[in-house]
Amino acid sequence: MAQEKTLEDLFSETLKDVLHAEKQLLRALPKMAKAAHADELRAAFETHADETEVQVERLEKVFELLGKPARGKTCDAMVGLVEEAKEAMSDFKNSPALDAALLAAAQCAEHYEIARYGTLKTWARQLGMNEAVKLLDATLQEEGKTDKLLTQLAERSANKQAAA
Amino acid sequence: MAQEKTLEDLFSETLKDVLHAEKQLLRALPKMAKAAHADELRAAFETHADETEVQVERLEKVFELLGKPARGKTCDAMVGLVEEAKEAMSDFKNSPALDAALLAAAQCAEHYEIARYGTLKTWARQLGMNEAVKLLDATLQEEGKTDKLLTQLAERSANKQAAA
Repeated sequence: MAQEKTLEDLFSETLKDVLHAEKQLLRALPKMAKAAHADELRAAFETHADETEVQVERLEKVFELLGKPARGKTCDAMVGLVEEAKEAMSDFKNSPALDAALLAAAQCAEHYEIARYGTLKTWARQLGMNEAVKLLDATLQEEGKTDKLLTQLAERSANKQAAA
Repeated sequence: MAQEKTLEDLFSETLKDVLHAEKQLLRALPKMAKAAHADELRAAFETHADETEVQVERLEKVFELLGKPARGKTCDAMVGLVEEAKEAMSDFKNSPALDAALLAAAQCAEHYEIARYGTLKTWARQLGMNEAVKLLDATLQEEGKTDKLLTQLAERSANKQAAA
């Protein structure tokens, strides 16, 4: 008899997806930092790369709490998002709109993660995994802050520069 | 001399991306509605499919304001998101966690659009396209409402069912 998949299966499958997503982002962020024109945008990407390392560690702890190995599984969505960021970097390489393009790509990645961590946190609560709820919520708060910072940067500097 | 790309170019390229994304979602939502176990989730997907049609029309109006044809361009991110939704539908086909998986996939798509419409609205304002700002904001508000509704459904019914 085939075993019926449970919410715990969905939770652990999604954790694998998010682990892979974070690791892809970890590789993309230094390239985005290097490409950025504005110092404050470069700094924001560098800070977020550091945060992402801690977020990966938190995910590894959640795997531990589940008693499962911390293995990623290809996250097609983040593959697409990173592909879009690369295209933007190439298409707008010498354009004053480059930073605006980088910011837009980064905000899409942030929103992907906000959706994922929100869902994971809800499921962890349903599964009674209180320690996991705390870990996932810590990352969710960070992602929200990063998104707000990127919005401020987009409204302030990069777009004004691009429209100049 | 190669022409330098401007914020207007970035705006119109991103519009093409979002038009393609919406059209993909328009094809995916009826399948997700058909797959959903809970009536209220099916209804939410059907309502959002109707809204998405109107959102496509708004995008077409923004193209008109730009004086450009409303053509899409492959949105790799939404390709990935739809792929993930399909996987979830297949992997959790007979599982009580199916609705939770569908909700999670839909929220990722919503957050992609929230990020995109937020960015497009900011750029439209910078470009002095006030009519476009209104159209993009109308969709942004709708996407936000849909995301909130999906969160409520996730917290209330689908996850409880899945954990049962």
